[in-house]
Amino acid sequence: MKSQFDLIVIGGGPAGQKGAVQAAKFKKSVAIVEKEEYPGGICLYTGTLPSKTLRETAVFYQGFRKRALQGMRGMACTMDKTVTFTDLMHRKDEVIHHERQIVADQLARNDVHVIRGRARFINPHEVEVDTDGTLSRMKAGNFLIATGSRPDRPGFLDRHSPPAYDSDDILQIDRIPRTMTVLGGGVIGCEYACIFSALGTKITLIDRRKVLLRFMDEEISAALEFHVRQMGMTLKLGEDIQSIEMTSSDRVVTRLKSGKEIHSECLLSAMGRRPATEDLDLAAGGVELTDRGQIRVDENYRTSAAHIYAAGDVIGFPALASTSMDQGRLAVCHMFGHPSRAYGHLLPYGVYTIPEISVVGRTEQELTEALVPYETGVARFREIARGQIIGETEGILKLIFHQVNRELLGVHVIGEGATELVHIGQAVIAHGGKIDYFVDSVFNYPTLAEAYKVAALNGINKLL
Amino acid sequence: MKSQFDLIVIGGGPAGQKGAVQAAKFKKSVAIVEKEEYPGGICLYTGTLPSKTLRETAVFYQGFRKRALQGMRGMACTMDKTVTFTDLMHRKDEVIHHERQIVADQLARNDVHVIRGRARFINPHEVEVDTDGTLSRMKAGNFLIATGSRPDRPGFLDRHSPPAYDSDDILQIDRIPRTMTVLGGGVIGCEYACIFSALGTKITLIDRRKVLLRFMDEEISAALEFHVRQMGMTLKLGEDIQSIEMTSSDRVVTRLKSGKEIHSECLLSAMGRRPATEDLDLAAGGVELTDRGQIRVDENYRTSAAHIYAAGDVIGFPALASTSMDQGRLAVCHMFGHPSRAYGHLLPYGVYTIPEISVVGRTEQELTEALVPYETGVARFREIARGQIIGETEGILKLIFHQVNRELLGVHVIGEGATELVHIGQAVIAHGGKIDYFVDSVFNYPTLAEAYKVAALNGINKLL
Repeated sequence: MKSQFDLIVIGGGPAGQKGAVQAAKFKKSVAIVEKEEYPGGICLYTGTLPSKTLRETAVFYQGFRKRALQGMRGMACTMDKTVTFTDLMHRKDEVIHHERQIVADQLARNDVHVIRGRARFINPHEVEVDTDGTLSRMKAGNFLIATGSRPDRPGFLDRHSPPAYDSDDILQIDRIPRTMTVLGGGVIGCEYACIFSALGTKITLIDRRKVLLRFMDEEISAALEFHVRQMGMTLKLGEDIQSIEMTSSDRVVTRLKSGKEIHSECLLSAMGRRPATEDLDLAAGGVELTDRGQIRVDENYRTSAAHIYAAGDVIGFPALASTSMDQGRLAVCHMFGHPSRAYGHLLPYGVYTIPEISVVGRTEQELTEALVPYETGVARFREIARGQIIGETEGILKLIFHQVNRELLGVHVIGEGATELVHIGQAVIAHGGKIDYFVDSVFNYPTLAEAYKVAALNGINKLL
Repeated sequence: MKSQFDLIVIGGGPAGQKGAVQAAKFKKSVAIVEKEEYPGGICLYTGTLPSKTLRETAVFYQGFRKRALQGMRGMACTMDKTVTFTDLMHRKDEVIHHERQIVADQLARNDVHVIRGRARFINPHEVEVDTDGTLSRMKAGNFLIATGSRPDRPGFLDRHSPPAYDSDDILQIDRIPRTMTVLGGGVIGCEYACIFSALGTKITLIDRRKVLLRFMDEEISAALEFHVRQMGMTLKLGEDIQSIEMTSSDRVVTRLKSGKEIHSECLLSAMGRRPATEDLDLAAGGVELTDRGQIRVDENYRTSAAHIYAAGDVIGFPALASTSMDQGRLAVCHMFGHPSRAYGHLLPYGVYTIPEISVVGRTEQELTEALVPYETGVARFREIARGQIIGETEGILKLIFHQVNRELLGVHVIGEGATELVHIGQAVIAHGGKIDYFVDSVFNYPTLAEAYKVAALNGINKLL
């Protein structure tokens, strides 16, 4: 086996894959070292893709219940009380299999060597790969570390079996629980809380912070809080956990420092994820960590060792599949001296809560701090025909634009289709477009995209 | 009552409303003469909005049947055999009522006078309005004719009751028919054929032309033909009708010149719509028609009488609610000497077939004729994760871009969400963006919008 490469990528998730393929396109020799049987990472096997497949079923079920409540006669939808997770996730395996094939094809087509095993640095230019106990050594001119992350289980959660789950094993649950306590109001906690809530689970979500998704625009996270409460979720924000007691495989008592007790059938710990770096012997590679345990990188994703780069969850926020892919690609572009492109600063975030949320560009809070004079324009989905037709009357699209030169600065959307819609605004921001573009353009009728026009008119009218 | 205005708008559909509001924003005195009880036009009461509301139910029902076939266990969906249209369109009245209120509020807020009655020109600056037999006269410096269109019923279809319907009365049908013959493969014929097909009706669609939606890019209309046949629809293209015989209220025999006979429970005539101009006495206003009976306008929507403009269905193609709104607004901008904006040429078209279709910019056929060297990039929804998750594996997104300067020239989409997705490409075209934008941008994962990136990579690889 070949043991010398231009680039060795450690970890085959979204960041590693895209980095490897980019290097191959530069005609470099590339290997990916992946500890699992197939590349794909948690994105493909336990995280992003499986949870979005389940979410699709949950949204569909919720949509039906909503329609039933609105009095749609002649149709009926029922869910069997004994429905299992396997039933609901019937498409998961198919989707995963298909995506795995796409990844494998892409790597093969680009002559990327895929080596199964765990890599650790021996020196800055050499790793030792452990494949089921068989050790081999491999050298490379450059490295890309993309080993991802693991759930950060708090100390009081030693038990790693029912009724306690984390984001890596929650989808192995055998049925829809009647009640669930979710620890953590970040992206993962909010997403799973919404999915289970839509499936009928009574959720109590606890976070020591006062708001959900604290990196979001305040108006949007407040709207999310409103919606999840409407769904029947109980939020305990600004609360600290005193103790957790698991009395059987379907009984958890969570005690808060404020004295409250929460009883539930199971518990999901979503209190963050930590970079998966323990096995890498980073010190031997000359790679430094931040004080939060993430790999320290500069704006080009270069670590403290000039020929070693890192991308994806292993460098921390935002740790989304989409941004990780881009980081992997950009790291490799920089590594081999190819100019990277202009839109790198313009990362959209998509959060698959119910309703979903997506943002691109700046928030009001950031602009206020930066002393940029801005105005906002808001559209509510209930004001547009498509919102009425689909019964999505709670969505909000907020545009932020410069008060003087009218350039579009930020787009914040909550509601059905948010993760798709945000890309319209992203294209306008990327091209330096102004708020006027939306007024001057024709939108298909009826679409949710019309919200851009309504929001733009709302914003411009405030300037007059 | 005031009888002298800066602008009289004849017809209160999308074109008339937006024109009236624009004039009011210019501080002009404006009246809308509307023959029905409330403004809104066929868009609101019999056409666009009601059909899209029904379409939503049809798509939902079809989605459930598809999921059931794919083996989603634990959930069941049934449709009552005796389900009526009233049942399925339960939300129609609510949606219409809500939209009517929005229109009424907007007109009132802008001090637009709404006068119920039928207007006809007495001379170029004066109309007579007939309100239930009471005649009054009104003068204006300018007019905007936006009277819309009526179904064009062919001569052999004298009967205007079951089993023969047109696009203005099809939604008054009392149940889902088992079989339906649709005459016409244009937008309206295709949209209704798809809706009923999704609800379980066996459709035979007849057109003398060889293709559906002939103004579309050929690849997209071919894909539509494939899909509707997959749904179980029978297409008889390139066929002329010999005769139609209606033997009872649920029995139609359609004979083709080629000798075939088609039996069905009912028939929908969608062989075009003609401008509703008969009652206007256009000659007295000095307004000329084209030889197809449409009001002749220049690029600023000005008729042969310099102070009279026309917009919407009454001037012909494309006769969509979205484009009509824009025409009404632009006509009034020009009328009162306000500069109109830059993106007027860039009209998206949305067709609400199942799957839906949307296009913006140029087609391959147009560019070939114009001798513009172009390349295309195609993404199939089955290649992207979101397509797999929602089971939308047949969608296609095609980008057309200039072979030399790489500017994006056209976007053609068929598949779920097409009418929303097209606006991403529209923003890029409007700003003179290049195909590279999509490669260089981050897209939320998993979204259908990722198809832009996949298509762009496909296209760029062809250049190498």
